[in-house]
Formats: sequence, C-alpha cells, structure tokens
Amino acid sequence: MVDRASIARAAARTSLYVRHTPVLRATGRDLGLADHPELPVSLKLELLQHAGSFKPRGAFNRMLSETAPAAGVIAASGGNHGAAVAYAAHQLGISAEIFVPAATPAAKVSRIASYGARVIEVGETYAEALAACQERQRETGALDVHAYDHPDVLAGQGTVAREFEQDAPDLTHILVATGGGGLIGGMAAWYAGSATVVSVEPEACPTLHDALRAGRPVPASVGGLAADSLGARQVGGVMFPIAQRFVGAAVLVSDAAIRDARRLLWERFRLVTEPGGATAAAALLSGRFQPPPGARLGVLICGGNTDPGSVA
Amino acid sequence: MVDRASIARAAARTSLYVRHTPVLRATGRDLGLADHPELPVSLKLELLQHAGSFKPRGAFNRMLSETAPAAGVIAASGGNHGAAVAYAAHQLGISAEIFVPAATPAAKVSRIASYGARVIEVGETYAEALAACQERQRETGALDVHAYDHPDVLAGQGTVAREFEQDAPDLTHILVATGGGGLIGGMAAWYAGSATVVSVEPEACPTLHDALRAGRPVPASVGGLAADSLGARQVGGVMFPIAQRFVGAAVLVSDAAIRDARRLLWERFRLVTEPGGATAAAALLSGRFQPPPGARLGVLICGGNTDPGSVA
Repeated sequence: MVDRASIARAAARTSLYVRHTPVLRATGRDLGLADHPELPVSLKLELLQHAGSFKPRGAFNRMLSETAPAAGVIAASGGNHGAAVAYAAHQLGISAEIFVPAATPAAKVSRIASYGARVIEVGETYAEALAACQERQRETGALDVHAYDHPDVLAGQGTVAREFEQDAPDLTHILVATGGGGLIGGMAAWYAGSATVVSVEPEACPTLHDALRAGRPVPASVGGLAADSLGARQVGGVMFPIAQRFVGAAVLVSDAAIRDARRLLWERFRLVTEPGGATAAAALLSGRFQPPPGARLGVLICGGNTDPGSVA
Repeated sequence: MVDRASIARAAARTSLYVRHTPVLRATGRDLGLADHPELPVSLKLELLQHAGSFKPRGAFNRMLSETAPAAGVIAASGGNHGAAVAYAAHQLGISAEIFVPAATPAAKVSRIASYGARVIEVGETYAEALAACQERQRETGALDVHAYDHPDVLAGQGTVAREFEQDAPDLTHILVATGGGGLIGGMAAWYAGSATVVSVEPEACPTLHDALRAGRPVPASVGGLAADSLGARQVGGVMFPIAQRFVGAAVLVSDAAIRDARRLLWERFRLVTEPGGATAAAALLSGRFQPPPGARLGVLICGGNTDPGSVA
C-alpha cells in the first residue's frame, strides 16, 4: 500500500540520508512563455540530490526497510538508479552489484563505480540488464532493489512530493517525467488528487501514455535522447492503479523539445540537466502542456547526471 | 549610507526583478570534511540568479534609484556586472554600453551581447576598461553603473544577505568571495556583526586582505583563475569602512583550491560554478577557514557564468 502514511514513514526513515532539495520560484516570463508571463512556476531542484537524481529516496527507503543479507544488494538500472543504490550501499556499509545496459552513458557508469559498487554491463536495453540481474540475484540471494516496481521504492520517491507540498503548498499542477513510473507513482500517491499530477514522457518512450490508453501496462518503444533514464519498456504494476486514479494527464514531448529545454534551463537558470531531467519542463516550454487560467505550476527537475558540456 | 534600512528599501525596489534564490542545506560530510562531518552548511545558490550571478541586485537598485538619460546606461565590467547591467537595461527598456577587458571569457561577452547591449572590448584589465568607460561616459552623459563602488550598488547586493538571513536565520559565519567588495560590503552592512562575515579571495587577487592590513584601499595584484570576476585592482571606498567594522576575517585561497572546489560542487551537488563562484566554498574545503566549535556556516555560491564543460 503506497499512500500518504507510508510516504510519511519513508520520509522519517530516510531523512538522515536524503537531501531536502530547494525550490526555485520563477515566472512564465523567466521561462520565455510569451503567452503566460505571470504564470507562477516552482522548480523543485531535485537534480541537486545525492547521486544526481531523485533515485536515492526510493533506494534508501527500500534498503532501510529490509535488511540486506551478506551478499549485499543488487540492482539493474539505466544509470541513475544504479548510482543511487551504489551511493546508498556505500553510506550504509553494504556491498552492491549494479547491472547496466550498454546504452548507459559513461558519466553514469563512472559515478556508480566511484561509490565502490561492482558494475556489470550487459545487454542493449534496461530490460536485458534487468533479466541478467534477476538471474544473478537468484544465485547470490542479494537484496533486489528494483528501479521502480516495489512499494518501498514508490513510497521513497513519494517523499519528493511531500517536500514539494511543504515548500510550495499552493500548486495546482505538478509536471513530472515518467520512465518506469516509480517517481510519478509515489508523487501521485502523495497528492492523491489534491493537485493535478501530469506525466511527461518522450515521444520515443511513451510507457505511461500507452498504458493509460490500453488500460494496463503494455510494452512501449524505448529510444531517443532520454532513453537512459526514462527508457523502461513498460510501467510497473505497483504504480499503475495509482496512475489510473491520480495522474491527470499524460503528455508526450519531442526530443527537440527536450534539447531546447536543457538549453533554456542552462541559459536562464544555470541548471545542468540530463535529458530526462529536463523532460517535465519541456512539456511546458514547448506548449504541449497548456496551463489553464489560474494555474500555479510545479515542475520537478529530476536529474543532472550528464556531461555538463552537453547542455550549452 | 548603506545599512539595514537602505538594504530593505533596495529589496522592496528590486523585488519584481530579482530572483529570491534558494538555500541548499548540507553537512560537512556532504562536503567531504572528514574533521567536521556534522557541521551544518547552508549554500545560498545565487548562481541561479538572473544573468548568472548576484550582480543584477546592485544593477537594478542603481537603475531604479536614478533615472537614466536618453543615452542610457554605461558600465565597465570583467563580465558578470556587464551581463547584469545589460539584462537590467533590457528588462527596463534602456540602452546599454558595456566596456570589458580582453580577459573577459567568451561566455560572458556573448551573454552581454545576447541582452542587446553594445559591448566594447578594451584594455587588458578591468581597470583599463573602467578608464575607457569613464571617458565615454563624459562624452555621452549616460548613467554610470559602477560595478561596486556606489552606495546603491552595495545596498542592492546587500539584499542577498537579507534573503539568506530570512531562509537560514541561525548562521554564525558567512563566507563570501570578494573582488571590488560591493557584495561583501552590502552583506556585511546587513549582518552588521550579528553573524561573522568572512571574506575569501584568491591569493592572486588579495584586494580586501591587503586593504585591511594597510588600513586603506591599496592596489593589489590581479591574476589567477578567478581574475575575470574577482580581479578589481583595489576595493571600493564605499565598502572599506564597512569592511573594517564588520568583516571578521579575510582568508586567501590558492587557484588549486578553487579548481578543487568547482569539481566537488559539480560532483556532489551538480552545481556549475565559475571560479569566482566557488571561491568562498574553497576556503572551507581547503581548510583555510576553520569553523570554530558550534559554527553554523553559510556559503554564498555567487556565480555560474562559465563554460559548463570546464567543471568536470
């Protein structure tokens, strides 16, 4: 069960390990939105989190909820989750094995290794790395820290919504990037309809968009600029009923819109985002999400694990 | 007169134009300070300000306090002040001429030009660009927006201390980088001894350090990594009596320490700082500033106008 109570418990459990990331208040004018100059937009700077993305929230909550055996923890990841599990394992004194596909950027592989984890590169996509990880897990018995499809992971990611609500209590809409859906599942469980949570995905990785249409998680294409962080083949089973109930819309954006959003966030805010980290903002900047009159927007800037020179 | 009252007026005057930048709470452990793992450190992320540094605070306050003539505004700058004046002029519908020395990084020159200002590159140092700017000002009668040595500029920069105190009211020490001294002068005038304001300068640009020793502003060397933002030849006459009264210490750091601080702020916080923007943090990270027992530190991260690829 993922709800406000389990998210509040996750926040208490992880508070010593997770950064309360700051909120930057901006306007439509700041963002170059000629049609909405006065629109209030609160950017939650979750890219400043430990290990460079929101992922430590779920990883810590999972690893603090269940004791890892001597074999430590094991995870498959496009990169950010692996960095988070490796970081959390290092902080907690646990060993970690991380399976990543070949598409994982070098910056993420070296970040995972920098925390002392063993990195195994296998397969072309996240799904293939996950299969190899699961096989290895059956051999070692290590604690499996799934990248998104586990209630403790969702509850951990939901803590970012709890903080956002604390610091910006009046938001009407929250834009969030979706990959496997752990982040938006946790956030939608927190808001539970009190604000409209909007999913944003690349056109090349439309997992939640397609699932909501189909009425169940279905395989989607995996490609484009943000595939390393948003390229789960389909959304998780734990998040899906939450999304059906509490996700207000599922918007798709082009890779060009993501690229433009990264550039604008650098030019106007000096924020270095990875493609997945700029995807939620891209929906607003490209006009794919149109704020209704009176809207007060929140945008989660969720990751910065990239070559910094790639934003300019 | 630069004091809490004039700074509060500056905050009211500029509030529509200046971002209230967020504070990120960290610990000594986060920063890799093995001797001070529990040290609370609040980073004020002023690099997220419009135009990429704190400078719009002073520029707007000056330009909103005195009406510019038809000739517009004129300023000399190592880059950040020029970008701020150009940005403010653009927002206020005023024309601007900005004089920069040859040492100004290309990223800053193009940023100034991007706001529609006329950029004139002249001389090798800020002091030479300033001389050319003053000569031109006598011809045109444009409103001169000095980079640091004017009470309205100091009061504007002081608004960053007012915000910092609002968001982190319990700080005992605030580390601030010093160039010409407008920023630290305004901040020291705000704190007025209620917290210890510590000046940090590169060894290669020790303007305030040397002035406090001499008992008056004296010419100092101009060089090293951060010269484009901290390379004033000497501190201003307006700030100096404030510094004598309210700056608790003047610390010097090496260029290697600045380089290390930039890398750490990227690796652990995903913050892209220019050398001057990482200089205050460098004093803490290098051990040149030793926090006393019970200290609660504030560190101003004051600028991010740099090639983002240069931090990694």
